[in-house]
Amino acid sequence: MNTYDDDQVGRARVADSPELLAYYDELAQLDAGALWTVANEIEPWYPQPKSVPVLWRYRDLRPLVAKALAMVKAEDAGRRVVMLVNPGRKEHSAAVGLLYTGLQIMGPGESMSAHRHAAAALRFVHEGTGAWTIVDGQKLKVGPGDFAITPNGTWHEHGNESHDAPVIWQDGLDIPLTNTLDANFYEIHPELHQRPGPVVNSSVLSHGANLLPYGLEKWTRPYSPVLGYPWEPSYQALRNLAKATGGSPYDGVIMEYTNPLTGGPVMPTMGAHLQLLRPGQRTRAHRHTGSVVYTAAKGRGVSVIAGQRLPWQQGDIFCVPSWAWHEHANLDPNEDACLFSFNDFPVMRSLGFLREEAYPDHDGHQPVADRQP
Amino acid sequence: MNTYDDDQVGRARVADSPELLAYYDELAQLDAGALWTVANEIEPWYPQPKSVPVLWRYRDLRPLVAKALAMVKAEDAGRRVVMLVNPGRKEHSAAVGLLYTGLQIMGPGESMSAHRHAAAALRFVHEGTGAWTIVDGQKLKVGPGDFAITPNGTWHEHGNESHDAPVIWQDGLDIPLTNTLDANFYEIHPELHQRPGPVVNSSVLSHGANLLPYGLEKWTRPYSPVLGYPWEPSYQALRNLAKATGGSPYDGVIMEYTNPLTGGPVMPTMGAHLQLLRPGQRTRAHRHTGSVVYTAAKGRGVSVIAGQRLPWQQGDIFCVPSWAWHEHANLDPNEDACLFSFNDFPVMRSLGFLREEAYPDHDGHQPVADRQP
Amino acid sequence: MNTYDDDQVGRARVADSPELLAYYDELAQLDAGALWTVANEIEPWYPQPKSVPVLWRYRDLRPLVAKALAMVKAEDAGRRVVMLVNPGRKEHSAAVGLLYTGLQIMGPGESMSAHRHAAAALRFVHEGTGAWTIVDGQKLKVGPGDFAITPNGTWHEHGNESHDAPVIWQDGLDIPLTNTLDANFYEIHPELHQRPGPVVNSSVLSHGANLLPYGLEKWTRPYSPVLGYPWEPSYQALRNLAKATGGSPYDGVIMEYTNPLTGGPVMPTMGAHLQLLRPGQRTRAHRHTGSVVYTAAKGRGVSVIAGQRLPWQQGDIFCVPSWAWHEHANLDPNEDACLFSFNDFPVMRSLGFLREEAYPDHDGHQPVADRQP
Amino acid sequence: MNTYDDDQVGRARVADSPELLAYYDELAQLDAGALWTVANEIEPWYPQPKSVPVLWRYRDLRPLVAKALAMVKAEDAGRRVVMLVNPGRKEHSAAVGLLYTGLQIMGPGESMSAHRHAAAALRFVHEGTGAWTIVDGQKLKVGPGDFAITPNGTWHEHGNESHDAPVIWQDGLDIPLTNTLDANFYEIHPELHQRPGPVVNSSVLSHGANLLPYGLEKWTRPYSPVLGYPWEPSYQALRNLAKATGGSPYDGVIMEYTNPLTGGPVMPTMGAHLQLLRPGQRTRAHRHTGSVVYTAAKGRGVSVIAGQRLPWQQGDIFCVPSWAWHEHANLDPNEDACLFSFNDFPVMRSLGFLREEAYPDHDGHQPVADRQP
Ligand SMILES: [Fe+2]
Ligand SMILES: [Fe+2]
Ligand SMILES: [Fe+2]
Ligand SMILES: [Fe+2]
Ligand SMILES: [Fe+2]
Ligand SMILES: [Fe+2]
Ligand SMILES: [Fe+2]
Ligand SMILES: [Fe+2]
Repeated sequence: MNTYDDDQVGRARVADSPELLAYYDELAQLDAGALWTVANEIEPWYPQPKSVPVLWRYRDLRPLVAKALAMVKAEDAGRRVVMLVNPGRKEHSAAVGLLYTGLQIMGPGESMSAHRHAAAALRFVHEGTGAWTIVDGQKLKVGPGDFAITPNGTWHEHGNESHDAPVIWQDGLDIPLTNTLDANFYEIHPELHQRPGPVVNSSVLSHGANLLPYGLEKWTRPYSPVLGYPWEPSYQALRNLAKATGGSPYDGVIMEYTNPLTGGPVMPTMGAHLQLLRPGQRTRAHRHTGSVVYTAAKGRGVSVIAGQRLPWQQGDIFCVPSWAWHEHANLDPNEDACLFSFNDFPVMRSLGFLREEAYPDHDGHQPVADRQP
Repeated sequence: MNTYDDDQVGRARVADSPELLAYYDELAQLDAGALWTVANEIEPWYPQPKSVPVLWRYRDLRPLVAKALAMVKAEDAGRRVVMLVNPGRKEHSAAVGLLYTGLQIMGPGESMSAHRHAAAALRFVHEGTGAWTIVDGQKLKVGPGDFAITPNGTWHEHGNESHDAPVIWQDGLDIPLTNTLDANFYEIHPELHQRPGPVVNSSVLSHGANLLPYGLEKWTRPYSPVLGYPWEPSYQALRNLAKATGGSPYDGVIMEYTNPLTGGPVMPTMGAHLQLLRPGQRTRAHRHTGSVVYTAAKGRGVSVIAGQRLPWQQGDIFCVPSWAWHEHANLDPNEDACLFSFNDFPVMRSLGFLREEAYPDHDGHQPVADRQP
Repeated sequence: MNTYDDDQVGRARVADSPELLAYYDELAQLDAGALWTVANEIEPWYPQPKSVPVLWRYRDLRPLVAKALAMVKAEDAGRRVVMLVNPGRKEHSAAVGLLYTGLQIMGPGESMSAHRHAAAALRFVHEGTGAWTIVDGQKLKVGPGDFAITPNGTWHEHGNESHDAPVIWQDGLDIPLTNTLDANFYEIHPELHQRPGPVVNSSVLSHGANLLPYGLEKWTRPYSPVLGYPWEPSYQALRNLAKATGGSPYDGVIMEYTNPLTGGPVMPTMGAHLQLLRPGQRTRAHRHTGSVVYTAAKGRGVSVIAGQRLPWQQGDIFCVPSWAWHEHANLDPNEDACLFSFNDFPVMRSLGFLREEAYPDHDGHQPVADRQP
Repeated sequence: MNTYDDDQVGRARVADSPELLAYYDELAQLDAGALWTVANEIEPWYPQPKSVPVLWRYRDLRPLVAKALAMVKAEDAGRRVVMLVNPGRKEHSAAVGLLYTGLQIMGPGESMSAHRHAAAALRFVHEGTGAWTIVDGQKLKVGPGDFAITPNGTWHEHGNESHDAPVIWQDGLDIPLTNTLDANFYEIHPELHQRPGPVVNSSVLSHGANLLPYGLEKWTRPYSPVLGYPWEPSYQALRNLAKATGGSPYDGVIMEYTNPLTGGPVMPTMGAHLQLLRPGQRTRAHRHTGSVVYTAAKGRGVSVIAGQRLPWQQGDIFCVPSWAWHEHANLDPNEDACLFSFNDFPVMRSLGFLREEAYPDHDGHQPVADRQP
């Protein structure tokens, strides 16, 4: 067992000296440096995320989001979005780790122009019934609780066809990842708008009940051919699973939105889950690599993250940094509670970085300052 | 373009002679032979299946199936099944190619003992509401139109819990393939019966709407974790797809029952499809390697196979041999018609033998003796 | 544990009766039958191959092969091949299971015309230095001990450019499998001959030392891009492995010829191995599904197959049927012995039929009538 | 075609105003912000790497590397490494993008203690004949030009068993990537040293000539079982390929060190190539996502990167940032020149970020200030 002590064989522990400082200057002249001056920092004992747990309350954010409707024109803003910024990740405009999230508002009758980018996007609808998006020529209508994807490289545009109420949906993107990898591209649609096919929600209609379309052209893109996952059947799937299994000790009854052609995540850089906490259920803590943005989709509860108690109710958003202990509880004794979440687990999995462990003490529960759940 | 003439360079055309006949005898002494004596036969220009198109009418078979109920005890029969035997494949007890099918009847209250085998099985229920099966400890209840699988190596047993009506379901197995590959094994359950878990249809409950259970033990077996595909959602999925696409010119609107973890077939040796022919729809002919057993699941129609007209209605079973031209028509002008089918396409695909072509003439329709559809 | 007794619950045990015989006739009228009349036969306790172990001695076969050179013209024969036929598999022209093998002879200066077929072929050269083959436009020169492949669908032709000596190589094909699956096609090259590219053995030159060509067009075919595996580096690889590992208890030091793009078998229907038995080494017996054709590539030894002692020396060919116990011994106390073999394991693996077990008794050795090794 | 003009529909172009500035303050209070204030920056038209092209000359670095030998004890330094730091990536200690590289020196008889980390490492030996490394219990001896890997999570330690000369090898690691993903772990071996198996270079001995060991335990780790790729056979493979193909217009004759079980890169986060420029060869420019560190392994030449001429000779190291135009030339008219390189292409490929384009003008050559090659 390692002691996490940097003053032992196997760690760098070279003291500065005038000779060494002069030597370091020489190295710097050649765009070089001495590894041992930074080794312990860049080879930490365990992940040292700069992200911290944050809770964004919908009741706090909503008024400010609504304000943007009046203050900026959608087309001047590109998209009218209030982004959620982790205090430790301001320079990346990240909500946690390399994930971006924000609340986008579209007024009645508004629509945006079409563009595409290497960054992948997803949407989770908070309110409003008039939302639509066109992704690579396919029109989707989405309502509260619906989840939709806009994969890397797909043309997209969206709007609100309601006559009287705004739409607020949550965007999730891997922009910080894409930029960190020096791989982002952006393009405006040459005609500013796509011409969608005649069938709305066609990919949703085409995939269901564990059957797949046959005899058509083979789908070869690295993301799900299903562009939308409506709330109702998703929630129903979760309820059905709850009849069949006890679920995970750390997450309750949890499912992943998947690409039905692979059983894998919806996109190669971001995955998404929907989970159900039974009335009064309290999960045990675990931690793992990978960052997660959670949105309370139904009910009310509390999550303890890195020892901090974050109470939430429908619409609230919070995040779990990589390797932070976390556990969840449903505070309602009669109703189930649901959390939608998205994450960078596909990245961690592809690159071989997934690691997980259970919280070993106190029956799986972290100590918190003000412990109530 | 080849002329299919065996009297040309590149084909064997050695005439017998006394010297050669003597030579062939010498070879035979050493368990050897001259390739050229069989080359043209074992290297045919195109597949030469011994299977022929056959139509088995349910109204013909049902009385004989019912008769078996009285004539043999289930446990003496192993399973009480009338198997459908292609005239060209009697020595393999095959319905077509290397596929076996049969109609199994279980009287009210009957149940069979548990066993397992390397041959994979599937079920398609024709009638009766009391059918159940237990597959590797999971109890499934199945009704008319439901499709269920019993993969290679899984313990299984089944019965009929109805009080008054028999169950008739169709078995589909790859027994001829498994035997041809010298790979079949059979085992009787040491306790003759399994002890099923408490939840019925648990794998069906656990998989739906393009979400997958998460956080549980990873499924690593080479077949679908979903053991049942009930009629209602399957048919609904097909109807939804029909809204989104025109379908295949050869099959109408067609879907494959899939393993949601891979997007592939339900089992490595047999695939299954459900297809919908719109009112009055008539498809174009094509042919491909691979054998298919079809069951009319709904409505009435006619299929033309290798120039033979096979009219069918709900419950009827027919087969398409490898490389035989085939096309389908729905004879009802107002109702859709549905065909369930199973096949050995997964074998053909894994081994690189899939080949397909469209019928080139007459707008895609074969000449038939008595053409009416 | 099962007793392999057919007179128990779970097996069919219906006695004939006049009523049943009449019933069976009724069924036969409808192209149907009663499963229980054949169930125990088509669902055997374990594989019941019709193939038997056979040893074909090269010293016996060679004179007859040579005789063919004089007796038939190559172009009349198609290819001048003495095929090896298992006594139990005559109707399939199979050496064992669904595998075909034969010895092909080409006289000095001879060449064959080009064709292709769905059946896959492989070659193992016994003697002669002038052999060449052109596979999909790539010319390969092969000598004794070299292994080469002619995958499903590739154009091929071959010849012997020696001035004075014949070539004898061994063909291995999956013809019986391909026909059994009703999937064979045959085509004669429209110009009778291909025009090979300028570089001989280009695929061999392009793949070595665990590096792969980069920046060229991606290989997407389902077989190895390497068409030849020359003896010398293959044998050297085996000798190197022998330095690093003890090898398998059943096979000695054994390697598989692989597709370097997948690590898998060279073709989807047939795999090939080269194995080394150390001086005096005697392996333990095991059995598994899948059929194997062995060729003694170096040295002399004995194999015990299903209790039969088959002594072999370089050039000899023998076979192991599916599920037959087998073990090998090198009879030379000073020299290593090598066996080349090909098999249908890729089929068994793709379809989920691979099963293996070790011989449990007598220290892993079968009893034989005349036991000496 | 996009104009890269941020003052158009589809880009953010909201001017500051007192009201907006107050609004931004309100957002900041809630850990939120307005997307449109950063949108154009975080959604750039194309990648905007902070890395710049750098050339590190071995003749400049070597004296400073040698100096470290005297100035710090190996065990105090952890490892005695002069790292190469891109002027644009100092805060990440990265040579380019998210790749780290450095020159490590080990004096005669020195050895380091064992540790492991989630960051993956590779080595390319510059000089010295006494180098060894033990990776997960396997001892490897490596000499000049040899390439070796130390995958994520493998225990490793190394040393120099020469009596008189130091070893200098180049380390390549994905440390910046691993940290950016909040996924790094570090552990010191509980006994400080491993006990290697008896066979040196066993994984190298076990894999060659497109054959793979068979019948041993299946390798399931996500990286190559081959831990070393010696110079001589690698260079020979490249020379053989040069006989068979013209190579890539952008890279000359180039091969990737691969995992022979998958045909893929040696590790999931870093790939490595060896390429040969024929005497006098000058390639055409292209650009692609992904970062590359090059080391001149043989000969002398010049590379033009983002319009900068970087002349190199054996031992020199240089880098190509993501999306920078680059082309290479061999300046020797008689001898081939070789570049070793490592990259993050596996990351780009897994995540769907690979994109490439050819330089369209001037026959594929970039303008340079002082153009001579
Ligand atoms: Fe966008
Ligand atoms: Fe978690
Ligand atoms: Fe069965
Ligand atoms: Fe068909
Ligand atoms: Fe052939
Ligand atoms: Fe074996
Ligand atoms: Fe290290
Ligand atoms: Fe490049």
